[in-house]
Amino acid sequence: MASLEPDSQPQPKPNPALALQAEILARPATDERRMADAIRALAIDAVEKAKSGHPGMPLGMADVATVLFSQFVKFDAADPRWPDRDRFVLSAGHGSMLLYSILHLTGQPGMTIDDIRHFRQLHSPAAGHPEFGEAPGIETTTGPLGQGIGNAVGMALAERLMAARFGKSLVDHRTWAICGDGCLQEGISHEAASLAGHLGLDKLTLLWDDNSVTIDGATDLSFTDDTLRRFQSYGWAVRRVDGHDTAEVAAALAWATRTPRPVLIACRTIIGFSAPKKAGTAASHGSPLGPEEAAAAKSALGWNHPPFEVPDGLRERWEAAGRRSAGTRRAWLKRLAKHPMKADFERAVAGRLPEAWHEALAALRAKTAEDRPKIASRIASQRALEALVPAVPEMVGGSADLTGSNNTNVKGIPSVTPENFAGRYVHYGVREHGMASAMNGMALHGGIIPYAGTFLVFADYMRPAIRLAALMRQRVIHVLTHDSIGLGEDGPTHQPVETLAGLRAIPNLFVFRPGDAMETAECWELAVKRADGPSVLALSRQNLTPYRTEAGENRCARGGYVVEEASGTRRATLIATGSEVSLALVARTALEAEGIPTAVVSLPCWELFAAQDAGYREAVLGDALRVGIEAAVSFGWDRWLGPEGLFIGMEGFGASGPAEELFRHFGLTAEAVTAAVKKRIG
Amino acid sequence: MASLEPDSQPQPKPNPALALQAEILARPATDERRMADAIRALAIDAVEKAKSGHPGMPLGMADVATVLFSQFVKFDAADPRWPDRDRFVLSAGHGSMLLYSILHLTGQPGMTIDDIRHFRQLHSPAAGHPEFGEAPGIETTTGPLGQGIGNAVGMALAERLMAARFGKSLVDHRTWAICGDGCLQEGISHEAASLAGHLGLDKLTLLWDDNSVTIDGATDLSFTDDTLRRFQSYGWAVRRVDGHDTAEVAAALAWATRTPRPVLIACRTIIGFSAPKKAGTAASHGSPLGPEEAAAAKSALGWNHPPFEVPDGLRERWEAAGRRSAGTRRAWLKRLAKHPMKADFERAVAGRLPEAWHEALAALRAKTAEDRPKIASRIASQRALEALVPAVPEMVGGSADLTGSNNTNVKGIPSVTPENFAGRYVHYGVREHGMASAMNGMALHGGIIPYAGTFLVFADYMRPAIRLAALMRQRVIHVLTHDSIGLGEDGPTHQPVETLAGLRAIPNLFVFRPGDAMETAECWELAVKRADGPSVLALSRQNLTPYRTEAGENRCARGGYVVEEASGTRRATLIATGSEVSLALVARTALEAEGIPTAVVSLPCWELFAAQDAGYREAVLGDALRVGIEAAVSFGWDRWLGPEGLFIGMEGFGASGPAEELFRHFGLTAEAVTAAVKKRIG
Repeated sequence: MASLEPDSQPQPKPNPALALQAEILARPATDERRMADAIRALAIDAVEKAKSGHPGMPLGMADVATVLFSQFVKFDAADPRWPDRDRFVLSAGHGSMLLYSILHLTGQPGMTIDDIRHFRQLHSPAAGHPEFGEAPGIETTTGPLGQGIGNAVGMALAERLMAARFGKSLVDHRTWAICGDGCLQEGISHEAASLAGHLGLDKLTLLWDDNSVTIDGATDLSFTDDTLRRFQSYGWAVRRVDGHDTAEVAAALAWATRTPRPVLIACRTIIGFSAPKKAGTAASHGSPLGPEEAAAAKSALGWNHPPFEVPDGLRERWEAAGRRSAGTRRAWLKRLAKHPMKADFERAVAGRLPEAWHEALAALRAKTAEDRPKIASRIASQRALEALVPAVPEMVGGSADLTGSNNTNVKGIPSVTPENFAGRYVHYGVREHGMASAMNGMALHGGIIPYAGTFLVFADYMRPAIRLAALMRQRVIHVLTHDSIGLGEDGPTHQPVETLAGLRAIPNLFVFRPGDAMETAECWELAVKRADGPSVLALSRQNLTPYRTEAGENRCARGGYVVEEASGTRRATLIATGSEVSLALVARTALEAEGIPTAVVSLPCWELFAAQDAGYREAVLGDALRVGIEAAVSFGWDRWLGPEGLFIGMEGFGASGPAEELFRHFGLTAEAVTAAVKKRIG
Repeated sequence: MASLEPDSQPQPKPNPALALQAEILARPATDERRMADAIRALAIDAVEKAKSGHPGMPLGMADVATVLFSQFVKFDAADPRWPDRDRFVLSAGHGSMLLYSILHLTGQPGMTIDDIRHFRQLHSPAAGHPEFGEAPGIETTTGPLGQGIGNAVGMALAERLMAARFGKSLVDHRTWAICGDGCLQEGISHEAASLAGHLGLDKLTLLWDDNSVTIDGATDLSFTDDTLRRFQSYGWAVRRVDGHDTAEVAAALAWATRTPRPVLIACRTIIGFSAPKKAGTAASHGSPLGPEEAAAAKSALGWNHPPFEVPDGLRERWEAAGRRSAGTRRAWLKRLAKHPMKADFERAVAGRLPEAWHEALAALRAKTAEDRPKIASRIASQRALEALVPAVPEMVGGSADLTGSNNTNVKGIPSVTPENFAGRYVHYGVREHGMASAMNGMALHGGIIPYAGTFLVFADYMRPAIRLAALMRQRVIHVLTHDSIGLGEDGPTHQPVETLAGLRAIPNLFVFRPGDAMETAECWELAVKRADGPSVLALSRQNLTPYRTEAGENRCARGGYVVEEASGTRRATLIATGSEVSLALVARTALEAEGIPTAVVSLPCWELFAAQDAGYREAVLGDALRVGIEAAVSFGWDRWLGPEGLFIGMEGFGASGPAEELFRHFGLTAEAVTAAVKKRIG
């Protein structure tokens, strides 16, 4: 799915690209061609020095990228984080040297020639694939194919939402993305492009590196879509250009800026352009050209400078391109200074929550303590949203066509439609993967806190995007309802049993599974407050008996705590999450009645609990018999239970039937817990 | 993504469908309409009795399904497992009562009226969604949207492959699938349809229940694709029909059988057809109509029979439809009886391996013991395939465009192309999800053992399909290479750290991580032999030092074993998988040299090890200090290490750099292991 290995053998094939390449090289060299050659030279040098990397795409797309960055992308190298800059996404992340070369040449901070010399080496910001956070100007982490398209759609949507909130004078920028054949083969490209077409995201332009080559060889080995026609079916405007004809590319990009629809431009290019033997073949995709071919490529370009050297004239041209929008930015700063919403805008972009949010939740928690509602945690989640969404204007919700089941919508909050981007609720459609990837893009854009729902079991459909949110440390909140066999009749395809474990394994993802309305409010508070990573809320379909009655401290903040202490020296500690906490409390009553002092521990967030000091964890879990109770497989529980512990949960997939019968059928009852404890401790 | 909850509120909207419905109901009732009404009545009754389910789709698609099963689908109720039957996939699995009604009415065994009375109840084969194995005629488990389209593509591909091997006289059937808007919104529909179009699977027909309604309400809330145009871009033939006009439907299906391309037929239908108030609305999608509306629907159909009763005349018509192809089947049995490949065909369809396979692997293992090659396990896997693929003609390989990296191809095995289905290697393209779902379909079809590759980290892209293979107990083998930071420069987006844990959490999935060439051959043997579930082989990019020199018993068969015992009473046991086993062996040497008797345990398959008796497991793991070593996160390891154990692995995501530097950087070295052990027991 990404890099070609040095040791792989693309099948030998005749190479029609070479004649075309000769014709292109014979064209009079324009300024842009020279600037593009600077990208090419740096890409060749970096990959050769690293002895690893993907020269093919930067060599092929250098002309397109040069036109894009020297004439169209609005950015100021002096302030690469300027909020109203255009966003650029390199969805074909393996071509990272294209982006690094441009960041360096335009004079952006954080990408020195020395960094590029250390391409693909530890601690260099010039990593194998673009990694968000390594340098400004890297707007997102790409490499897993197709994700960049989803991110770009999310960024373009975020721009529309922010423009609707703050006005065109503060928010008026475009989103550009470069993708390859692989991105377009991925299913996520369908979900994201279909959503963008539906919403009419007219400031989004996707540049397809249409080079007819994939890793296995010619694309027609596996890929014969009429991609332009496909994108037309989504409501996109499309055009095809010679990706090596800078005038034609410029005309197409100008047309894109005038077109009131998302635009796909197929750029016919030669992969590995300038390499006399490997151009037009998979051999140039993912391995160094080799010293000989590299030298020959440079001389074919008439590039006779030492490695990593760019002549001053070209540097000046590129740096001028990097300063092109400096005046625009200064004018924008003036507008911002006098803007009535200046403070709100800066707060939203900085990701700081408004004052009101905490009071809103405190009020909800107080009311919850008073009412002690016996409701499903998905309903409690809706109540939390009814408090949060009005108080936090950055929050933008949605669902993958399960609004009524996920309870993600809030009364009075209008939907986002092609006509109304002042809405704050997105009907993402049955597009979990595109949704999650777009949410990543919205968070990366800044000024938006995206949350959206589907069923917990379908987290699998979004997993690659959830992983990237964790890797990029983005505040993205997934509301995942129907979190166990408790969903009942829909059966094993819809009943998560391994899903919690699968998510808990992902680094930097917080997985919350609250057990009653109060815990749900607390977990929402923690998820919204968390600025450096994504959160999942696993919520029940069925009603849950409340056990938390005090509205004081946020007890979920430590990840786990004692809900009910034993009446005497603990002989057993029942450790549960979510809907199984109230089951544990019933079992505790029975055990206590039989003279077995039993404590109940709620473990709503393993990641936070693991972050507590060992002393606290041991005090909570205790040294009596530990019994884990969760309507899921035991994978991962041994950490809390130890070798002597008991686990009461699922051994495999679920079944179709009424929820109560399923809990009985699979032995997830207070009686079963009580019996198991008594059997063990006699 | 699937069932609408009773408690969800679709937004109120004017209902244009009702006038159209009146017009349709006024049409003279044909035989087909009456037969369709039998489906409708059973669907209404079953959902009402269950107080849960999805009446909308069966009511809407009953006419289409009646024409399909009474005139086109080749099957014989007397032998629903007849290998040359047409395959039918209900991709919109929530409409399960459509399928159950047809299975019952056509007289197929295993779906009695009593089963239907117990729709969505424990132990009834009429589960909430169709579950493979619950009754013959349920060809696959559906519900997670889009999967059925991928399965159908795999079944249609399997038919072509089997026909190429055994000839048209034994294998000549079609694949039919019904999908909804949700299936078409899912990205997997893009991957699967694009692949089918590329391969020109001309015996595949997809019937789209084009009812303009999804769970959130009207499809145009989120979905405005021109779907017919989209499928044309894949090379499909398309047509639109009135799904309530049985003659028009019949004509379109006849056209489909004559069309030399995959066919998409958009069937305009009214969801919840016949329900006087709820027809044409999301309210009929996923909840019972309610007694009043149900009664009114039946009277609108002129259906005045008691619940679950079908008048004899209609029963006879349906049972005649179920016997339609009996003669065809008898003729086929005669052809099979005289067919020179009868034995091979029966063996392949039964999933029994040919005699030759075991010898082929035994020879490989003997040679491996002799040569002791220091190679990457992905290369060892290729050698295993070079032994297996010629010996096992059912094995059909492939890769998601990483053939050269996954080493999944075998010299001399031709590729599958639209022109040559005698090939046995599929270039799936960058379509991991479609690939895995198609592989499920190939396995379900029978006669094929699919295996294919991508990078381990991209198992996430296939996870929903891997889960279904585990749930359906299908022999599907995933060759997942580049299984750790050992892949080096491509960086954290390509370096699995949580992926092994995520896969190990899935019930009934075997996750193999062999540590040298011998273990790789052994794990391949176990994966191929395993008839009742999927397997993953996690393989290294980098070379591995061999430690297994004897070719006798398959030691991986017990999941874990002692590679090297301690020289004396164990003071430490190093427990590792894959590439870390040889690292553990180096550490052992150092520890033994310092007088610390140390054993090394290889744990290539946790699922098999967990299945051993406790005595064996304890003997292998020992009671000395246990040290887990894996270039991955520790999630799940506590089970083997206990509270006193040490884990040496990854704490989070990886980084971009040369592999050796990464292992040093993250402290995954023999020195680090040695130091940690000494520190603990010093």
